[in-house]
Amino acid sequence: MTVSLVGAGPGDPELITLRGLARVRSCEVLVYDRLVAPEIVAEAPIGSLRISRDGLGQEEVNALLVAHGRRNRPVVRLKGGDPFVFGRGGEEALALVDAGVPFEVVPGVSSLASVPASAGIPLTHRGLASAVTAFAAHDVDALDAAALARVPGTLVGFMGGAVVGRLAERLIEAGLPAATPAAVVARGTMEEEQVVVAPLGSLGAAAHGLPTPALVVIGDVVTLREALGALRRVAAA
Amino acid sequence: MTVSLVGAGPGDPELITLRGLARVRSCEVLVYDRLVAPEIVAEAPIGSLRISRDGLGQEEVNALLVAHGRRNRPVVRLKGGDPFVFGRGGEEALALVDAGVPFEVVPGVSSLASVPASAGIPLTHRGLASAVTAFAAHDVDALDAAALARVPGTLVGFMGGAVVGRLAERLIEAGLPAATPAAVVARGTMEEEQVVVAPLGSLGAAAHGLPTPALVVIGDVVTLREALGALRRVAAA
Repeated sequence: MTVSLVGAGPGDPELITLRGLARVRSCEVLVYDRLVAPEIVAEAPIGSLRISRDGLGQEEVNALLVAHGRRNRPVVRLKGGDPFVFGRGGEEALALVDAGVPFEVVPGVSSLASVPASAGIPLTHRGLASAVTAFAAHDVDALDAAALARVPGTLVGFMGGAVVGRLAERLIEAGLPAATPAAVVARGTMEEEQVVVAPLGSLGAAAHGLPTPALVVIGDVVTLREALGALRRVAAA
Repeated sequence: MTVSLVGAGPGDPELITLRGLARVRSCEVLVYDRLVAPEIVAEAPIGSLRISRDGLGQEEVNALLVAHGRRNRPVVRLKGGDPFVFGRGGEEALALVDAGVPFEVVPGVSSLASVPASAGIPLTHRGLASAVTAFAAHDVDALDAAALARVPGTLVGFMGGAVVGRLAERLIEAGLPAATPAAVVARGTMEEEQVVVAPLGSLGAAAHGLPTPALVVIGDVVTLREALGALRRVAAA
């Protein structure tokens, strides 16, 4: 094995997998995302090369992995969440395949379920939702709002920035009731987690000023937070 | 903390999180699903009470967690995948809330992304899919096939049994082209993993006789398997 694409989990450093941590501890080169917990980066061996991908384009990251992978050194590409869920891991994997560099994927805990869970919101729940649709909401105006408004179950938007209000607006125009329960979870699973709950119609105003990255959760499961929302406080006790 | 709802990950025992394993190692009572890796169950302390939930109804599991949780002993409820993704963890959490028993959720690696990844299929990929819809397909005839056929991105069905053919049939009737790339991954991430790839129109026949549990993946991302499908073989080398 030369290159491991490893999911670091949603933020909390104890949510990396056993295999993920083992790969970090035995790497010679570590290329890591800005959002990965510093505690995990610190597990790379003394003397290993640690490269933040901050400021690098995707092509540059691909080239870096190929270059180090070709030298047959154990390389770890450490990504927030899971490499294959909005993580562009597929692009890095294809670059390695094209270059003939062996690689593996070590899945991680995606933000998709763990961030809502940290806020006391299950993605699915008997009688409330038996499906979930996750989408990248970096370009809100390009989304197929009509299809999203119609699909049954919970909606989860991975937000790039302050587009919550515009997303809500488009979904309501497409037919989702303004009263639909919704939440925004910023910096989920981390100490500085912030959660805002509001009907879809006022979600944009309620979430104004929240830090990124943030996840938007829309659907009846949000109502469970009232009962389950003490999760995180309890976990810290 | 008395009761921890812990996600054990998709099957491979090294895909549990650090916190999940720590909870198992310090529990006094372990209630575990049939699909959890025996290697993880074996990590519970000698002398701990280990209870398989096999054959117990959901109400009985809830009652068991409440009863042991009330005695203030560390209880771990170990579930396949993630507790809040088709895991009915919300129901167990609500039962604990109702009984006034403190609890936490420790997220796990869901099958949702890790099982397709193990077969070389990313859920999202630039230019192919920027959204994913996951749904429980135990009752195929109750699904809103029209909405599922229309939502953009990848579809992932959590299958209870041999309903792959009927699911494909309903989606095609609802407008999904029979040529849509599709795959079934049985016992994903485990040694005995089996993968079948076929256009949606012939998926049912191709997947005939596969063991359960199985995940159905439908969408253009399935085409990436041809390039990335050696993942697992490489990982085992």
